[in-house]
Amino acid sequence: MLKAQTVLPLINGGRLIERHRSMAFVGATGRGGVNRQALSVEDAEARQLLLSWCSARGYAPEIDPIGNLFIRRAGKQPDQPPVMTGSHLDTQPTGGNYDGIFGVLAGLEVLESLDDAGIETERSVELVVWMNEEGSRFAPATMGSAVSAGAMTLEAALNVRDVTGVSVQQALEDHLAIFPELGRRPLGSSGRAFVEAHIEQGPILEAERRKIGIVNAIQGMCTLEVDITGFEAHAGTTPSLNRQDAFVAAMVLLERLRSKLHDPADVLRFTVGRFEVSPGSSNTVPGRVVFTIDLRHPDVEYMLRCCETIRAFASGTIERCNVNSRLLLRSDPVQFATSITEEIRAAAVRRNIPHMGMLSGATHDSRYASFKMPTGMIFIPCEKGISHNEAENVDPQDLIAGAQVLSDTVVSLAGISS
Amino acid sequence: MLKAQTVLPLINGGRLIERHRSMAFVGATGRGGVNRQALSVEDAEARQLLLSWCSARGYAPEIDPIGNLFIRRAGKQPDQPPVMTGSHLDTQPTGGNYDGIFGVLAGLEVLESLDDAGIETERSVELVVWMNEEGSRFAPATMGSAVSAGAMTLEAALNVRDVTGVSVQQALEDHLAIFPELGRRPLGSSGRAFVEAHIEQGPILEAERRKIGIVNAIQGMCTLEVDITGFEAHAGTTPSLNRQDAFVAAMVLLERLRSKLHDPADVLRFTVGRFEVSPGSSNTVPGRVVFTIDLRHPDVEYMLRCCETIRAFASGTIERCNVNSRLLLRSDPVQFATSITEEIRAAAVRRNIPHMGMLSGATHDSRYASFKMPTGMIFIPCEKGISHNEAENVDPQDLIAGAQVLSDTVVSLAGISS
Repeated sequence: MLKAQTVLPLINGGRLIERHRSMAFVGATGRGGVNRQALSVEDAEARQLLLSWCSARGYAPEIDPIGNLFIRRAGKQPDQPPVMTGSHLDTQPTGGNYDGIFGVLAGLEVLESLDDAGIETERSVELVVWMNEEGSRFAPATMGSAVSAGAMTLEAALNVRDVTGVSVQQALEDHLAIFPELGRRPLGSSGRAFVEAHIEQGPILEAERRKIGIVNAIQGMCTLEVDITGFEAHAGTTPSLNRQDAFVAAMVLLERLRSKLHDPADVLRFTVGRFEVSPGSSNTVPGRVVFTIDLRHPDVEYMLRCCETIRAFASGTIERCNVNSRLLLRSDPVQFATSITEEIRAAAVRRNIPHMGMLSGATHDSRYASFKMPTGMIFIPCEKGISHNEAENVDPQDLIAGAQVLSDTVVSLAGISS
Repeated sequence: MLKAQTVLPLINGGRLIERHRSMAFVGATGRGGVNRQALSVEDAEARQLLLSWCSARGYAPEIDPIGNLFIRRAGKQPDQPPVMTGSHLDTQPTGGNYDGIFGVLAGLEVLESLDDAGIETERSVELVVWMNEEGSRFAPATMGSAVSAGAMTLEAALNVRDVTGVSVQQALEDHLAIFPELGRRPLGSSGRAFVEAHIEQGPILEAERRKIGIVNAIQGMCTLEVDITGFEAHAGTTPSLNRQDAFVAAMVLLERLRSKLHDPADVLRFTVGRFEVSPGSSNTVPGRVVFTIDLRHPDVEYMLRCCETIRAFASGTIERCNVNSRLLLRSDPVQFATSITEEIRAAAVRRNIPHMGMLSGATHDSRYASFKMPTGMIFIPCEKGISHNEAENVDPQDLIAGAQVLSDTVVSLAGISS
């Protein structure tokens, strides 16, 4: 904790807003959102823009073997573990202008406002851009932080392919070729702490009229893939009872699961987001359906029971089709360190900003960061809770308030002489 | 009808089988089937192979403005309307080696066996290759015969685009550039009769142990497209009751339709073959779903009532999503001309081949041909009724029997002196 008399730097709100505007041009879809999927040309452009701002300040950028980017502002004690902050620049295919980007630009603002105030921190401060948080091009999500934390092997990550067959390894090689000047560092970077600012992506802060959410925990998440094999047949000639219609089998299975897993409290999140039908011809009975189930709950036991139910239902024979499932990702709930949540709370109190403790419905890179170091997250409201959508929107005043609380927290953790 | 003493030419069964083998290489998927979608490079290759066989015989090939190909063997009375036969060379994306191909190769066999026997027919005989029967790349199915019969305008057909945005017009221009030597003819070709040989694509002939199906009628078919617009949202943070999940709305709608349209007699064919979910990311609540319903029934009133039910159910709001539908294709049942079915029956009787009258579950180009001239179809069995599948298979003896009945029917209609 800071001594009462310490003067913390003020962030530059105008610059923060301006940088969000600049970043919104990179991969712009023309409908108000962006498409900057991990390791795409647009993702590289976003990193280039960020690095152009950093190089003007003389910060030292480095990249690790899975493509996480680290931008260091050295402190008085460069050998001490740094305080880290950041988020991600990659987006959903139809993503908005704040998810991830805000945490990166707010982190940059922490470094720059220290420069502007002529302050040298005790510990170094590092801005992190995690590779592939969204997982929409290469599954799973939060890949870069998972590999950094040792929760996924580098080899497994490099072998993942997108729908066109391009591997992470290939995409990463192409990506690195764009940045020949970047320093390299090994996997497993850690520090004194990691603090991530992020939009809430839900409706709670807006409904509660609070500007800062102090995230105590991230709910658990499982991603499953269900694979149904039937038999292609002519849509005009094949009677229902002779069909092995993989689409009908998927419907029957999902009806059963919806009924079995129904949660009257509406805490369980159950989403079918990817659903692929082969051969996809209007007059052919589908021979194969592959779909994902994204399942989330704050209670690990409840989550695992739901997972087991899905595994049990999605097996054997349904409507004469062969049904299998596999777990793509299991991410148990995590609790954040009280030492960090208390720093964030103190920062909000000092600035007199309305705040509340809360749960994160989405997973974040902070989850894996918390495996390596004390970690916390700062949420700000987003309009109507809309996210993973081009219509995602945030009040500029909330961007500024969130970045200020982040700055105060990081600077306090890094230490300055009063 | 023929006089009893007329000697009809025998087809060359070995050549027919060999040509099926050659055609199976064109667009081969490597899994036993073919992918020769309409106006693709593979479709053009199949036509090139066919034309190479025809040019060796000196037949005159011509193409019409929608890409239907006509190959003429001139008769004694070249000004009289010809007798036409044929089918299609395009296939499903994972199609088999007999659907369509058989009718074309059997038709070629009719022409060649007349040559081999040194017979000159009274009327000319024309082999037709209809463009885009399958409709899997460019919807709707039976496009070439529909335009030829005036049931679809040329302009409407040329403006149809595939999923990559290529129009029929563009694909047709590219296709025609491959065949600069082809003669041109206007739309609307007609003749004395059209007879199409085809595999049954259903299980009836096999179950009844008959080798020839004399098709009396084609059941009716409607293709509808349902378009559901919800709102993309984050899968981890958005409670069920706040979601506008287009996938859930599609499931609810399809449950209602399955229940409402359930046909205990299993005569109604109801197929969802194409089902596209956007943005298709595992951790984003789908904002849009577009799917097709392929609906078939022999009774036009029943079919139209089902169509109206779908239109009524697929409208307004379901699960907070906006639901719309449109009719892509309406194809009423047709009855074939008794004059043609009786010719086919007489041919089967003369050759002592077990036969039966039957309904066609699938639609065919013969449907539109029947708008312009007396038309009939000859079915042969296919293994287990499997079609629109790479595993499609036919007993070679049945190919030969079907081609012989086709030849006898066509030659009888074209007329020869005994």
